[in-house]
Amino acid sequence: MIKTKDVKVGDSIPPLRKDVGKYQPILYAGASGDFNPIHIDPEWGKTVGLGGNILHGLCTMAFVSQMNIDWLGDPGRLKKLKVRFVSPVKPEDTITIEGKVVGKEGDAIKCEMSVKNQEGTEVMINVASEAKL
Amino acid sequence: MIKTKDVKVGDSIPPLRKDVGKYQPILYAGASGDFNPIHIDPEWGKTVGLGGNILHGLCTMAFVSQMNIDWLGDPGRLKKLKVRFVSPVKPEDTITIEGKVVGKEGDAIKCEMSVKNQEGTEVMINVASEAKL
Repeated sequence: MIKTKDVKVGDSIPPLRKDVGKYQPILYAGASGDFNPIHIDPEWGKTVGLGGNILHGLCTMAFVSQMNIDWLGDPGRLKKLKVRFVSPVKPEDTITIEGKVVGKEGDAIKCEMSVKNQEGTEVMINVASEAKL
Repeated sequence: MIKTKDVKVGDSIPPLRKDVGKYQPILYAGASGDFNPIHIDPEWGKTVGLGGNILHGLCTMAFVSQMNIDWLGDPGRLKKLKVRFVSPVKPEDTITIEGKVVGKEGDAIKCEMSVKNQEGTEVMINVASEAKL
């Protein structure tokens, strides 16, 4: 598990790449209880102009959480996570999360991340976390 | 709650009609953990010759269980339920379950049910239950 003394401002966090499965939104509907048709029905997603069904924002946010926790080594170390959703994630997208340490005060650190799809489009902005090591 | 003395062979059980929702198979996938594409992906269901996605047999069986329990008044009274699946149930089908008491010995009763869709097709056969009042 990463130690306070080994972290400095500017350090990169190991990136995480997620290949979003065709059925990921349906699986996440089952996990979350959110069965909104925009998530589970591709035809409905087309009807409402989304071009198909889209992934729950909270699922993509969970990917960001996973990326942080994989690095921190302990879920309890992650204290805050904020994001702003700007572009939908779709089944079979590939999401890449990169980030770095932007602040450190004692054992408290702040990180910023970028979250992009396979076309380089940011699906979230203002992605920031706070952790305690 | 129905009493032993009020039940005799030949009695009808109050029928149950279920309008299967468009998303029932996806909801049941979430409840059961069975996300087989034949249940959650209409396109896949077409590809494999089912004409669309189909409902989990266990979900239809649960409807039969519900019909029995609504009448028995207590889930603990239902001791056995057996069915044989013969025809798939699809989203937006209407399923009607009818049944009657076919045996009684003390407080033990046996029932037989028919389970049909809106076209009168039996979706299950050999549908039988045993209960203790």
